[in-house]
Amino acid sequence: MREDAFVLKGNICYADTKDHLTVMDQGYLVCCQGIIRGVYPVLPEEYKSLPVTDYQDLLIVPGMTDLHIHAPQYPFRGLGMGLELLEWLNTHTFPEESRYKELDYAREAYRIFAEDLKKSATTRAVVFGTVHVPATRYLMEELERTGVITYVGKVNMDQNSTDELREKDAETSLADTAAWLADTAGRYQNTRPILTPRFAPTCSGPLMEGLGKLQREYQLPVQSHLSENLSEIAWVKELFPWSSCYGDVYGHYGLFGGQARTVMAHCVHSSDLEVELMKKNGVYVAHCPQSNINLSSGIAPIRRYLEEGLRVGLGTDMAGGANLSMFRCMADAIGVSKLYWRLADQTRKPLAMEEAFYLATKGGGSFFGKAGSFEEGYEMDALVLDDSGIRSTRALGTKERLERYIYLAEEGGRLAGKYAAGRKVI
Amino acid sequence: MREDAFVLKGNICYADTKDHLTVMDQGYLVCCQGIIRGVYPVLPEEYKSLPVTDYQDLLIVPGMTDLHIHAPQYPFRGLGMGLELLEWLNTHTFPEESRYKELDYAREAYRIFAEDLKKSATTRAVVFGTVHVPATRYLMEELERTGVITYVGKVNMDQNSTDELREKDAETSLADTAAWLADTAGRYQNTRPILTPRFAPTCSGPLMEGLGKLQREYQLPVQSHLSENLSEIAWVKELFPWSSCYGDVYGHYGLFGGQARTVMAHCVHSSDLEVELMKKNGVYVAHCPQSNINLSSGIAPIRRYLEEGLRVGLGTDMAGGANLSMFRCMADAIGVSKLYWRLADQTRKPLAMEEAFYLATKGGGSFFGKAGSFEEGYEMDALVLDDSGIRSTRALGTKERLERYIYLAEEGGRLAGKYAAGRKVI
Repeated sequence: MREDAFVLKGNICYADTKDHLTVMDQGYLVCCQGIIRGVYPVLPEEYKSLPVTDYQDLLIVPGMTDLHIHAPQYPFRGLGMGLELLEWLNTHTFPEESRYKELDYAREAYRIFAEDLKKSATTRAVVFGTVHVPATRYLMEELERTGVITYVGKVNMDQNSTDELREKDAETSLADTAAWLADTAGRYQNTRPILTPRFAPTCSGPLMEGLGKLQREYQLPVQSHLSENLSEIAWVKELFPWSSCYGDVYGHYGLFGGQARTVMAHCVHSSDLEVELMKKNGVYVAHCPQSNINLSSGIAPIRRYLEEGLRVGLGTDMAGGANLSMFRCMADAIGVSKLYWRLADQTRKPLAMEEAFYLATKGGGSFFGKAGSFEEGYEMDALVLDDSGIRSTRALGTKERLERYIYLAEEGGRLAGKYAAGRKVI
Repeated sequence: MREDAFVLKGNICYADTKDHLTVMDQGYLVCCQGIIRGVYPVLPEEYKSLPVTDYQDLLIVPGMTDLHIHAPQYPFRGLGMGLELLEWLNTHTFPEESRYKELDYAREAYRIFAEDLKKSATTRAVVFGTVHVPATRYLMEELERTGVITYVGKVNMDQNSTDELREKDAETSLADTAAWLADTAGRYQNTRPILTPRFAPTCSGPLMEGLGKLQREYQLPVQSHLSENLSEIAWVKELFPWSSCYGDVYGHYGLFGGQARTVMAHCVHSSDLEVELMKKNGVYVAHCPQSNINLSSGIAPIRRYLEEGLRVGLGTDMAGGANLSMFRCMADAIGVSKLYWRLADQTRKPLAMEEAFYLATKGGGSFFGKAGSFEEGYEMDALVLDDSGIRSTRALGTKERLERYIYLAEEGGRLAGKYAAGRKVI
């Protein structure tokens, strides 16, 4: 239900910059037509007629953006974690994704995924589907109903995959994509399409050429994978020997930032040149710490990316990551940054809690425009956090309660409310 | 309630060696007088008169041992994670532990801790208290009531701590310890004392000398910390310049294995000599992966320890670790072993799920004797796991369901039953 204007009251906390949290205890968060008007210690006269939902002592924080998540991999989350990327794709991922050619299977799997995503802390997500148009359209319909704001991609892959999953050729892949775009255009309020070349190894030159054209024609955003695994990077170099770096392959076809808003998952092993290209083109990094652990990929140098001014957000990378929780994702991001500091490079200090929170909210949210903050003019995405189940003898301030919630969301936390673009989801 | 003999039915899974899981679907687990008689596909004639609890399609696995946990740190779990060990101790830990001189505070805090531990997957734990005798005795009483089997230590520290927390001198510390031992002797069924020099830097030579004597007099086990952090190790070398390694300090006073059953937390940066000494003396390593992340300590080389035949189990190290869940602890152990392989030493292959499960059950359980397995003659510790909340379109085998539960215990799992030493806890 969308209400045109309303007020939430509670202990409000949001990241305005990556180094600063604004905290207002017992503050008022005012939302009109889905847009934040402001946060106030005392409700201004002009808003006094608005309905107030008083969440009392609970925490109110901006919604979280999951910048990288594979919906069709949800059925095997937490399974088959003993492999590295390329073997994992062939053993687990491609066989599972093949099942989505059966719409009945896709329906059941996507219904579960959408229901669980709705219940999660995620208010916005950038989602991979499969190559299948009917299943991807069904995924969009399911996601539309959740109220979560999403970009959804029909995957493109015309080479280097299993016979069952690989698309026939670039032409077929492009025709299917165009049909999918035409079919879904303007159909949804919460869900929009995003171009999704799976990753360079599975996309022929002609396919990426065509996707670049579609991008320019429809002004679509782009998502893909980048420099996740060392074997993958070597393979890309073999397949595209002319490229100066992995990212240059996408760039060559107009699928790497610039006028094409682009998010690339992982960037664990990006070369200096690639980082430079990402920076120049404003490419988003979807940092997926748990997936990078699970698939033994390594640790992305997020401190470096932040210092260089790259755009960064967080992703679960379900099912490379097993957990849907963006709180867990924040804790993992902090954790791996500490191990990176300890084991790889002591000039890159670990992420502070404030920075991880920024990445999960405003950092990733900015891929959608003004989202992930409570500053004036932002779309109103909010979570209401009940931490009364995390018992302690200590009296804690709001910022401490938020820090604790990041680590303990799944051990006593409860999502007591969720709003996306001004609409109540939970 | 202890019943003399009973049978549990369900999908049974346990680790008999670190590389092998025994799985028996719809098997019968027979327990007489608290001891496992065996696991059977068909209930033998001789047990047919015993009461059977049929857990149907649920999983039944051995209970978990948390080899290293600080009860008094539970109130600040998930807080203050931006510091390294020594600063963290001074900023967060010592001030919190000082509060336990007030018995009212200790009562409230330990009641919460014990209640939450009871609800967790932990059936056995090796627990640090504080220096305070009355509070530690209260902790033992609370833990006794939970049914969880524990060793509990009154902490010794007569130097290098805050004025509020440090004990007056070695004599006072030893006298308090002797009084505590006399007072609690034979008082509990589930809870036993363990000698607990906090760590070498906070214990004077005379104190450790005296603890060594107490150890021999009472034949007590020992717990402490070892080689967690590089600054800590350098400090130990300064304080005990005669020592050949950190572990040698404990060894010098008879507090490092041999006839003194000993568990040492962390062992992240143990030297070759120290590893040799641990091996020779049968010292247990309590591997605390999440704590080693949170305090930026590093990654313990657990693959090496397993290859060298050291005794290893897992610990949460609450509140260096924020999560009480031993499932999370297993997932973290697997995760950090992958990053160790990737970033530190590619000759040390990551832990498999089976190995982490072994460490959490039989590996750590053996500190208590025969615990952590369903082999004949083991004490009957068991967990009943309901994974119906982890929804999937896939039909999974028991081993896959266990793997998934390790990653997703807190995202849809539910502990449907818990037994320790043959008694129903939940």
